[in-house]
Amino acid sequence: MSKQPVLTPQSEDFPRWYQDVIAKAELAENGPVRGTMTIRPWGYAIWERIQADLDSRIKETGHENAYFPLFIPMPFFEREADHVEGFSPELAVVTHGGGAELGEPVAVRPTSETVIGDCMSRWIQSHRDLPLLLNQWANVVRWELRPRLFLRTSEFLWQEGHTAHASREEAVEETLRMHRVYYDLMHDTLAMNPVLGRKTAAERFAGAELTYTLEGLMRDGKALQMGTSHYLGQNFARAFDITFSDTDGQLAHCHTTSWGVSTRVVGSLIMTHGDDRGLRLPPRVAPVQAVVIAIRDEVAADARELHAELEAAGVRSRLDDDTHTGFGRRATDWEIKGVPVRLELGPRDVEQAAVTVVRRDTGEKASHPRSGIGAAVVRLLDDVQASLLAETTARRDAETRDGDGPDAVLDGGADGFTRIAWSSLGEAGEATIAEAGYTVRCLVSPDGGVPGADTPDDGLVAYVARAY
Amino acid sequence: MSKQPVLTPQSEDFPRWYQDVIAKAELAENGPVRGTMTIRPWGYAIWERIQADLDSRIKETGHENAYFPLFIPMPFFEREADHVEGFSPELAVVTHGGGAELGEPVAVRPTSETVIGDCMSRWIQSHRDLPLLLNQWANVVRWELRPRLFLRTSEFLWQEGHTAHASREEAVEETLRMHRVYYDLMHDTLAMNPVLGRKTAAERFAGAELTYTLEGLMRDGKALQMGTSHYLGQNFARAFDITFSDTDGQLAHCHTTSWGVSTRVVGSLIMTHGDDRGLRLPPRVAPVQAVVIAIRDEVAADARELHAELEAAGVRSRLDDDTHTGFGRRATDWEIKGVPVRLELGPRDVEQAAVTVVRRDTGEKASHPRSGIGAAVVRLLDDVQASLLAETTARRDAETRDGDGPDAVLDGGADGFTRIAWSSLGEAGEATIAEAGYTVRCLVSPDGGVPGADTPDDGLVAYVARAY
Repeated sequence: MSKQPVLTPQSEDFPRWYQDVIAKAELAENGPVRGTMTIRPWGYAIWERIQADLDSRIKETGHENAYFPLFIPMPFFEREADHVEGFSPELAVVTHGGGAELGEPVAVRPTSETVIGDCMSRWIQSHRDLPLLLNQWANVVRWELRPRLFLRTSEFLWQEGHTAHASREEAVEETLRMHRVYYDLMHDTLAMNPVLGRKTAAERFAGAELTYTLEGLMRDGKALQMGTSHYLGQNFARAFDITFSDTDGQLAHCHTTSWGVSTRVVGSLIMTHGDDRGLRLPPRVAPVQAVVIAIRDEVAADARELHAELEAAGVRSRLDDDTHTGFGRRATDWEIKGVPVRLELGPRDVEQAAVTVVRRDTGEKASHPRSGIGAAVVRLLDDVQASLLAETTARRDAETRDGDGPDAVLDGGADGFTRIAWSSLGEAGEATIAEAGYTVRCLVSPDGGVPGADTPDDGLVAYVARAY
Repeated sequence: MSKQPVLTPQSEDFPRWYQDVIAKAELAENGPVRGTMTIRPWGYAIWERIQADLDSRIKETGHENAYFPLFIPMPFFEREADHVEGFSPELAVVTHGGGAELGEPVAVRPTSETVIGDCMSRWIQSHRDLPLLLNQWANVVRWELRPRLFLRTSEFLWQEGHTAHASREEAVEETLRMHRVYYDLMHDTLAMNPVLGRKTAAERFAGAELTYTLEGLMRDGKALQMGTSHYLGQNFARAFDITFSDTDGQLAHCHTTSWGVSTRVVGSLIMTHGDDRGLRLPPRVAPVQAVVIAIRDEVAADARELHAELEAAGVRSRLDDDTHTGFGRRATDWEIKGVPVRLELGPRDVEQAAVTVVRRDTGEKASHPRSGIGAAVVRLLDDVQASLLAETTARRDAETRDGDGPDAVLDGGADGFTRIAWSSLGEAGEATIAEAGYTVRCLVSPDGGVPGADTPDDGLVAYVARAY
């Protein structure tokens, strides 16, 4: 392996490190139109695994996928006052189509509450049509003046769930259920351990009554919102006339929810686990879990066999027998790409019926007997998965401190989370710390739990941080 | 089952039948912006199965998925003369973003050769970077003045493959390989049997040197282009400067290909297999392969057991125990939705340890012993799959006739395919029949095979039809 760093060290310049790792791991690059992003095969393979995992969780909880149009009539946005206020500044607008100016310009969807609300109003008639549980995988556009790959791009990919219910209670339950589903994805698959809580009024989604969020802590001490789940009350139901006849035959407005996770989560994966040598992918989301590197041509056949054995053991393995490229260069490349386990095979290993196994997370290198290697790698992958989760959890806990009032962050310029009783902060304090670049990421119960819909803000604890 | 038809019969008004079945099977509906489409859960579930099947075939042939931006700078289109001429009239153009007029308007992608060509020029340096085998799943926009659900919509979903190669030979081989992959999807999974051939110069993709196509015959005797695969020569490589240094260190332009299948294929599935009672889904692509209908409440538990047994046998089963809705209505609904096998369970069936099994394709109804029902349904599904393929193949063959010169179609106003020696038609004849609404769907070798890239048009047979 090369000894000189190919990436800017994190401690030196974190944003530069982030750009470096995205470029060197071939995850993504800027598109030709400012703010847009090209997701390269390695980045997209990670996204595909996140998608597949989340999609099955969404289906298991009873939702069906559908697809709604990219183009939305402008007047749809105007029906919900907060929504139009929130999204107007970010809209991309199509004014010409088919060689002519359009009679009415149309918006490129920034999110689909409006166009789906319009469908719901036709699809729902009776309480028997409820709950209506929909999801879509789509691209959305929010014009970005300060784009950053994966974190803020004018176009991004996401899933957006949209559901309609007969009662507030059921809609709130759904909102919390999907919040939990996101946590399971992030915790169990992505080895991340975000703080879960409720947004303050200032930080809510445009048009929502309640917004629940998952806030991860990145390795530079900044927080990142990784997913949100909204209870929309009857706001969109009123704006789009989504009504149902209840069991007594009375017409009532539905209660709706929406929730989304985007390609932003790839950015959080990079900044949660990556180190100075590159990405470190949790095995469950790694497109390639183990790479078998044939050091020299004469062991290529052995390497191929080893690769086949790993695949037979259920490991997503890749064979690297590109011996035209130097071994050190190849090892570094796979390291940057974050493959969890590297198996290096040279003539001496073959002689000794052994394999050199390197863990990406710790860098530990050990010789393993060739026999039983499949099962050993499976165990090692479990271990890497657990270690990454433990590491990020410990880091989050170490970087979370308690304080009181706005001064808790204003004095210290603290990295990480500062826990401040909401009663000592309030909306005035929230505005004060905002000027110094801090925001209330979420409100959490004193016991660390997620506050219910009816729990008042007073008595809750604010998690405060600088955020992406 | 209801006896009065809920759909307009095909023989009475085929386009109306098509609209009816899309509405009643809840496949899709028009979006609020003219020409756009909402794909409802049942329609989307079919598309998801097509996607999964095709995606694995695309990956098995060595391609990697990636994602390229929705927005393309207008000047990109101008670099390839034929391409801009072909697509300009269909472009949707964004002129405003983030509340301000853009300095340069941007196009919403109608296809991605240009934006991917720009990436290829950076990603490819040496012959060692070739072949570059990419695919993306995405939405594209081509402004449609006469939209038709699934067949012609301003926005549609598709996959578009884009590859770069060192030589013409390899690129042509790739073009034909993906043409064959599409055939395998359509034949093996969708029980369709399209005619395979090469497009005439007049019908080629804008910017291609060769276009290969798959032309299905719909039940109204019209042809439908279901997928295309293009050899782009060095046209885009020149326009976007996609070069590589060959083994001698000489700089050369790549040879590129592109190929796509879209949600249009859902339209072809409807029109290939649908009958007067609704959709008929080939089991391999059916989101639900068998529905278990509990006729009355008292058999709900037995129905649940039966459903579990089918799932254990590997059948995608759905339980319908919605006994609030009349049995006849439910049976008709599942029939319209095209579920291949219906299992009806009433008190008498339970008494006799039997199940009433109805095949959607033939309408045959039989009583099966309850024991061993899982294996029986698996066999039945195979049989339905094979029958649908045999039926559509027979129909295509019966509706294909031979003729000579333009008069072969001008005289008869023939439905189906007319096979005419290209030498008796030529470009002049092609223009003549176009006035009467006929087009050369493709050119095929006299033995029925796909003509190679170097086989001249003379000596080939033109398949002529009216087309969607």
